[in-house]
Amino acid sequence: MPIRAAPRHPPFTIIRASHIEYGVTDLARSRAFWVDALGFVATGQTDDALYLRGLEERNHHCVVLRRAAAPTIRRLGFKVHGDEDLERAAHWFTQQGLPCVFVEMPHQGRTLHAADPLGMPLEFYAAMEQTERRLQFYGEYRGTHPQRIDHINCFTPDVQASHDFYASLGFRTSEYTATEDTDALWAVWMQRKGNTHDLAFTNGRGPRLHHIGVWVSSITDIIHVCDVLATTGWLASLERGPARHGISNAFFLYLRDPDGHRIELFNSDYLTVDPDFVPIRWDLKDPRRQTLWGAPAPKSWFEEGSVFAGLAVRAPVLEAQPIVAA
Amino acid sequence: MPIRAAPRHPPFTIIRASHIEYGVTDLARSRAFWVDALGFVATGQTDDALYLRGLEERNHHCVVLRRAAAPTIRRLGFKVHGDEDLERAAHWFTQQGLPCVFVEMPHQGRTLHAADPLGMPLEFYAAMEQTERRLQFYGEYRGTHPQRIDHINCFTPDVQASHDFYASLGFRTSEYTATEDTDALWAVWMQRKGNTHDLAFTNGRGPRLHHIGVWVSSITDIIHVCDVLATTGWLASLERGPARHGISNAFFLYLRDPDGHRIELFNSDYLTVDPDFVPIRWDLKDPRRQTLWGAPAPKSWFEEGSVFAGLAVRAPVLEAQPIVAA
Amino acid sequence: MPIRAAPRHPPFTIIRASHIEYGVTDLARSRAFWVDALGFVATGQTDDALYLRGLEERNHHCVVLRRAAAPTIRRLGFKVHGDEDLERAAHWFTQQGLPCVFVEMPHQGRTLHAADPLGMPLEFYAAMEQTERRLQFYGEYRGTHPQRIDHINCFTPDVQASHDFYASLGFRTSEYTATEDTDALWAVWMQRKGNTHDLAFTNGRGPRLHHIGVWVSSITDIIHVCDVLATTGWLASLERGPARHGISNAFFLYLRDPDGHRIELFNSDYLTVDPDFVPIRWDLKDPRRQTLWGAPAPKSWFEEGSVFAGLAVRAPVLEAQPIVAA
Amino acid sequence: MPIRAAPRHPPFTIIRASHIEYGVTDLARSRAFWVDALGFVATGQTDDALYLRGLEERNHHCVVLRRAAAPTIRRLGFKVHGDEDLERAAHWFTQQGLPCVFVEMPHQGRTLHAADPLGMPLEFYAAMEQTERRLQFYGEYRGTHPQRIDHINCFTPDVQASHDFYASLGFRTSEYTATEDTDALWAVWMQRKGNTHDLAFTNGRGPRLHHIGVWVSSITDIIHVCDVLATTGWLASLERGPARHGISNAFFLYLRDPDGHRIELFNSDYLTVDPDFVPIRWDLKDPRRQTLWGAPAPKSWFEEGSVFAGLAVRAPVLEAQPIVAA
Repeated sequence: MPIRAAPRHPPFTIIRASHIEYGVTDLARSRAFWVDALGFVATGQTDDALYLRGLEERNHHCVVLRRAAAPTIRRLGFKVHGDEDLERAAHWFTQQGLPCVFVEMPHQGRTLHAADPLGMPLEFYAAMEQTERRLQFYGEYRGTHPQRIDHINCFTPDVQASHDFYASLGFRTSEYTATEDTDALWAVWMQRKGNTHDLAFTNGRGPRLHHIGVWVSSITDIIHVCDVLATTGWLASLERGPARHGISNAFFLYLRDPDGHRIELFNSDYLTVDPDFVPIRWDLKDPRRQTLWGAPAPKSWFEEGSVFAGLAVRAPVLEAQPIVAA
Repeated sequence: MPIRAAPRHPPFTIIRASHIEYGVTDLARSRAFWVDALGFVATGQTDDALYLRGLEERNHHCVVLRRAAAPTIRRLGFKVHGDEDLERAAHWFTQQGLPCVFVEMPHQGRTLHAADPLGMPLEFYAAMEQTERRLQFYGEYRGTHPQRIDHINCFTPDVQASHDFYASLGFRTSEYTATEDTDALWAVWMQRKGNTHDLAFTNGRGPRLHHIGVWVSSITDIIHVCDVLATTGWLASLERGPARHGISNAFFLYLRDPDGHRIELFNSDYLTVDPDFVPIRWDLKDPRRQTLWGAPAPKSWFEEGSVFAGLAVRAPVLEAQPIVAA
Repeated sequence: MPIRAAPRHPPFTIIRASHIEYGVTDLARSRAFWVDALGFVATGQTDDALYLRGLEERNHHCVVLRRAAAPTIRRLGFKVHGDEDLERAAHWFTQQGLPCVFVEMPHQGRTLHAADPLGMPLEFYAAMEQTERRLQFYGEYRGTHPQRIDHINCFTPDVQASHDFYASLGFRTSEYTATEDTDALWAVWMQRKGNTHDLAFTNGRGPRLHHIGVWVSSITDIIHVCDVLATTGWLASLERGPARHGISNAFFLYLRDPDGHRIELFNSDYLTVDPDFVPIRWDLKDPRRQTLWGAPAPKSWFEEGSVFAGLAVRAPVLEAQPIVAA
Repeated sequence: MPIRAAPRHPPFTIIRASHIEYGVTDLARSRAFWVDALGFVATGQTDDALYLRGLEERNHHCVVLRRAAAPTIRRLGFKVHGDEDLERAAHWFTQQGLPCVFVEMPHQGRTLHAADPLGMPLEFYAAMEQTERRLQFYGEYRGTHPQRIDHINCFTPDVQASHDFYASLGFRTSEYTATEDTDALWAVWMQRKGNTHDLAFTNGRGPRLHHIGVWVSSITDIIHVCDVLATTGWLASLERGPARHGISNAFFLYLRDPDGHRIELFNSDYLTVDPDFVPIRWDLKDPRRQTLWGAPAPKSWFEEGSVFAGLAVRAPVLEAQPIVAA
């Protein structure tokens, strides 16, 4: 099988996918969508950035919306165990010949910027400004009651290479799709925090962001936000779902924010903390892996994604299959 | 059995329980509870009254909160089929030697005030000012998403007399509680609109209002409002539940408003439109009629109620049972 | 507007849409779908028929599946108030020059077979064998927890004619779709029992059945049956949804049974008992009337329906619109 | 504060609370409750034991019900990272002067039995027989759809001692209750797997088991099992709830199995994987910590628990508070 075991003691300890920084073209419009319609908590806003978090989150931000000339992704953020892990990370990236540099970032402690072998811009930090958790401020709940960021899902031109890199950093595979004949890795779901995913990759033109996954505790809260979006001027933001994936068992809804950035609201995943957890293999030809039930995904869902600022997009190593992608 | 069949053609045609007028001592506090916390739609407010309705309602009001020196009930409101029914009602009440008088009421068409044989103040009308239904304004949903008034539940000192009177007006019995030995009527649920109830009576010191029932479409919306009330300063408003009644199959939550008026949020009832529907009998000793499951009801729930303005409260005909009431 | 008011006192009193008789080609397969997968209560089975009801229903059957050489609809069943209404119905149909005949039907009292002006086969009865309600036998709940039949939805070649006929029988219109320019009636939702519909008509090749609507109390029960169907061999039965209609506010899921007969599972409708309820008009060009949100309906949903046994299908009076139907 | 930080590298790596072995007096009755009513998956049954697991679990068992003369707890089971952790655990327990011995257990790999300083019997293992996950066999779902064991909650006569011991093994505190004046530790919630708890302790006569926590994905599934239990002869099993704890934010229902062993069905917890997560302190006098809302807990919930086989129960170090316990 094309899946590699993660080392028990990776070169440094990543805790979880933690945040993302988007370039957006109209902060007020973005705020209307993310805060007023979806119900994210606005931690703070400056002239050029809006900081958001979910209801259970104490970290200052899981989403940073930064004013930009065009929609882009600036950084994928990961929390590491402690500041010593940042030193070890810097050492390791340098050893691998990969770019890395310490930077100052508002509301975060020491922060390391780096890039993976395909050029995806990463950000590591251990400490972030802590805020008051709003989980039990039920009177403030709005929209879909977004609870927390859960994962980041990207198109990559080389799934095997992306998988191998993150496996070496300790990401463990929970599920994956492979081609039946050549057993080539088509898509992979990897995790650090003990549930289905922190990071996922699908074969496609990339690197590009496919979506971030936001965990919502109940199916009815996801249905409710469909009603809210459809009747408050955001009908066009509904791209796909609600339906259920075979992979990850997610009950899902895919949205596009005003800049086209894709968000998955989901729940119904499961724990993967057991070290003897065996990754679940799906065949690329099995339609249930992608849609256990639900309307077919629109073309946009297969093809569109957000580009990383300044990073060229390449054609995938594996040719597109006649019918499906994952 | 102590239940009487309703005539197919009653003296005038009542459509449903439609509204209630409460005396409340602090309109601002009442608004904070009913509108901000529970999510009722505020149709309008004057110096001394606040008019509320549910999300699906086009009638101008289902609840009128009127400034008063003490908490009281002013009127129980019922919609009749047309203005000709008001004439027939006036004629009939007069024939029965019961008080009735035509009055002017804001936002209502021609309106008849009357009283039943036990003195309960009733209000009949056919036309009420119509408003825009807010059912599909999902972005405005708050609190428990109250959908509509459903029924009115009263203590009466003589259940059999109350039942007989409303049966003669065409109210059909859906369920009732009777004593095992003497088959005396202890409590009764009666309806006009084709679901479990419009009007219910329980043996007790009365006449007093026990509660109004407000229909909420989902169990999760009822759980959510528990969370909201408990964390926005209204914890003390939660009197009983969530739990399920055997009678009516209601999944319920009982609240007390700032003046102590009781509100039931509920769902899970059923249709009773079939003319061959046979009333369901429960024995007074069967604890499941009252609590299919859930914590025991507090003493307040059995004993407390809202008095009707100017109407003396009398001891019940039937003696209280050693263990239970309904 | 093309909508006609229903008379307060129609020629005879219809209570509600009550049942349907399907011709099905494989009773065992039908039972596996309706009972094992969807969770209908099987009241009884003979060599050539299976009788089903919902969890709250005491009527012996709301669905009769009868062995047949080909999938067809045999009858649309309506409950009338009493046996005297059957006499009045027979008299009235005869007066109108429409066919009607009294017949013996198992498990029903006196039964009248008749046809409407377009030939749709109707069945009227007042009394049906009563069974024990299974609403509080929660341990037996399966599938989607189907609570009761709610309505019958048909393609008709002449919506205005169908509307006019049923309006004259006392069916009141809750919502309708009309063309913007000519104000021609395209689709109509009509009711007797006080909620959104008992009977609905859409312009199309007909008469044919589009679907029966089955009321399910919670959204989560509808999502759950998607999961059940998709993983027990019935994935192909999922035709459309879950999503929400603008018209009727229904949260819906459309299924096809093993013979292709369509079933709508739904909830979120509202009361229409008020005589001053003004029908809601939707323009044919407004896409939200049909899909407040959700994936576009598949072609099959617009075009396919079940034929009535022995009744020819005719082209509709109104030409199909370029984009949409309702 | 009385809370100790867990070492980043504990003496051996515990993954999570994994299973429990109960002594039960009637296996058939236990199976009727756990499997038929609650919906646990029966992995296997022998003459004297029944092995159960939740819907998402691949481990052979999370609950072992073993025939016994009296209701007892045999063992609390924890999964460790690998077999090398068992060696390190044996070494460490021996060093501490605590009992430990390697044993053979059916369906498990190498297994170490040990006891904590208060005598609670523990079981450590790394590998358990793996089974097919039933998460996507939705047609088999029954009862409350129990997804997985989540935590174990015990009475201890010395909360501080229990806390200190498990903190030294790497359990991190998510929430705790302390007395206002002396800041004495009254109750503590500790975790290894990154959510609110794996192990919790409350001051009381002990050591005794208070309950195991079983994670259920939706509130409606917890309400549904109340309906099922109340109507299938298990009404008496409902001890407390549904309601919400302030601590852990759990929406909960407490049940008693046929032998009186207590089970909590719950959800609505949150992630605690961040190393900079600061434990949440509740004051013992704050009633919301225990009941954010809901009926008061019955006396049995405060006082009753399951004894460990052969282990004496001692009076608690802290005196009971006049009003409350946690």
